[in-house]
Amino acid sequence: MRDQDYMNLAINVAKAGLGQTNPNPVVGAVVVKDGRVVGIGAHLKAGEAHAEVYAIHMAREKAENATIYVTLEPCSHHGKTPPCADLLIKNKVKRVVVATTDPNPLVAGKGIKKLREAGIEVEVGICKASADALNPVFYHYLDKKIPYVTLKSATTLDGKIATVTGESKWITGDAARLDVHLYRSIHDGILVGVNTVLADDPSLTTRLPDGTGKNPIRIILDTSLRTPLEAKVVNDGNAPTWIIVGNQVNREKLNDFQDKPGVRVLQLNEQTLSVNSVLTLLGQEGIASLFVEGGAEINGSFLKEKAINQVITYIAPKLIGGKLAPTSIGGSGIETLGEALQVVIKSVEQLGDDVKIVSEPI
Amino acid sequence: MRDQDYMNLAINVAKAGLGQTNPNPVVGAVVVKDGRVVGIGAHLKAGEAHAEVYAIHMAREKAENATIYVTLEPCSHHGKTPPCADLLIKNKVKRVVVATTDPNPLVAGKGIKKLREAGIEVEVGICKASADALNPVFYHYLDKKIPYVTLKSATTLDGKIATVTGESKWITGDAARLDVHLYRSIHDGILVGVNTVLADDPSLTTRLPDGTGKNPIRIILDTSLRTPLEAKVVNDGNAPTWIIVGNQVNREKLNDFQDKPGVRVLQLNEQTLSVNSVLTLLGQEGIASLFVEGGAEINGSFLKEKAINQVITYIAPKLIGGKLAPTSIGGSGIETLGEALQVVIKSVEQLGDDVKIVSEPI
Repeated sequence: MRDQDYMNLAINVAKAGLGQTNPNPVVGAVVVKDGRVVGIGAHLKAGEAHAEVYAIHMAREKAENATIYVTLEPCSHHGKTPPCADLLIKNKVKRVVVATTDPNPLVAGKGIKKLREAGIEVEVGICKASADALNPVFYHYLDKKIPYVTLKSATTLDGKIATVTGESKWITGDAARLDVHLYRSIHDGILVGVNTVLADDPSLTTRLPDGTGKNPIRIILDTSLRTPLEAKVVNDGNAPTWIIVGNQVNREKLNDFQDKPGVRVLQLNEQTLSVNSVLTLLGQEGIASLFVEGGAEINGSFLKEKAINQVITYIAPKLIGGKLAPTSIGGSGIETLGEALQVVIKSVEQLGDDVKIVSEPI
Repeated sequence: MRDQDYMNLAINVAKAGLGQTNPNPVVGAVVVKDGRVVGIGAHLKAGEAHAEVYAIHMAREKAENATIYVTLEPCSHHGKTPPCADLLIKNKVKRVVVATTDPNPLVAGKGIKKLREAGIEVEVGICKASADALNPVFYHYLDKKIPYVTLKSATTLDGKIATVTGESKWITGDAARLDVHLYRSIHDGILVGVNTVLADDPSLTTRLPDGTGKNPIRIILDTSLRTPLEAKVVNDGNAPTWIIVGNQVNREKLNDFQDKPGVRVLQLNEQTLSVNSVLTLLGQEGIASLFVEGGAEINGSFLKEKAINQVITYIAPKLIGGKLAPTSIGGSGIETLGEALQVVIKSVEQLGDDVKIVSEPI
């Protein structure tokens, strides 16, 4: 086993925390002594222990003279938990292998410096690209202060999200729908337009077969507050619901939602909700990752603002045709191909009978 | 090398004839003597020699006591060429390995019987599925007497074939467009609606970088004969053009096209062209394979009749949005998902920056 192999293990261990560490990144750690793994750890929740703490705790006295592989530079400052660099020094590890330095410029390099000053051998940059790819949301949010936006759509092979009569249940098969619920579980927020609420009364929760997976915060874009008081998202209490409305909604109407537990109505000071204002607001409210499930008009607004960081497209092996059948991205559209949002295909796979394409804007 | 390996070689050799043997199937043959390939052959054009003839000719005296692998049962009847079974007997081959029997029930088994009666060892069924898959068009046309229809579309990731302003050049990249020209070269006919001719004045020819590849016959569905006399397909003489019109078109108008070399106007006795009538006509005219390149309305008609045998979909990594941007299959559409044309994904691959999905109705 080479350094890369152990670091890849640490990266895989880190994935245990995906979607549940916000605002922190996911981090994994592996302690190796005499060619044996003697401890592993992952950061699982903000405010709780860092990956190194679990790994060192598992290794106990074997940490002495061991090598620890960490996907992110150990912290050197007192946050909600004590500095991990101090922990490694105290436990007398011999060598620290780090995939990537802390992206926060105020912190970057300080943990490594502290370790080196304590006489510990530190190697930096092993599997950096894979480690960075663990936390695109984290890096994006740290940099832009707005959520990382994933646009999801499920279409037929001829690009429709519903038949001409509006039937859309179900375009894709079980495997694709399960995959969508996995995405929901790792996102801070799920966003739809009020038209989706009016048409489908969805619950927008994470529904995995074993009942696990956390629910995202449900975010409804609803300029003039048309969400029914009887809507599931307002009443089921399964997850918080935030309804974002424009400045034309009066106090009385806002008050209607006051007694609904878990429901917040957030008012923006504009008459037509702009995607940029919405994202700025959500960023301020701590939403680092946003899963946009449309419908077509909402998706069209996100496209117009090019406010998309990742696109997940499920394509079902069905043809339904129809000039008036809706497609995944509506709105007024982009007029010329030169102005199209160019994406790059990151992966293509068959998921059950469907095809899944993951892409990212260039 | 086992029988399968040599038969796979014969199958690959057969592919040399793809798209140019109509109305015959493609066939490949490999002659093996003492563990060495001593002859190969493929059927390249109807009326010309069969695969076995070329292979035996190449093997010359080494054919004696050799094994010949043939993707299709050798013929036993005098057609445009003498029976291949006789040739094999005369050249004293020792063993004949056949992938699949002749699909024509009047012929099936007779070649094999003749060989066995001459004391030649015959083995049947090696790689049958792969060999049959060489000739889906042939089997379909033999059975139904109408062309095997391949529907091609090129869309953005959000299912559009053009922007809201109608810009469609180019949605996909070079590799996908080259692939389309390869498909054109192996089809007997290419079909579009007159609206495509009016909008784009396309040449509908095979344009491969090296200038090779035969052109398909250009078929224009044009109910009331609106194809301009100046259209490229009417004047360039690069390939035959058939314009299919309804019974409302008068003699005078038909005569306008009489002097155009290579142009035929075929009149159906109906006021609205039905896909079934068109396919029956094309079948009678010897078109075994039809490449349908739309536009959206034409594709919609083929979908409504479920007259589709294969679907080739290119998906470009672009998002353009637009409620009114056209999709690959228009028309009135299928109303319920239960009635959708279900296809099965046969392959998914990345072609340059695009994704290519090949599917077939279940």
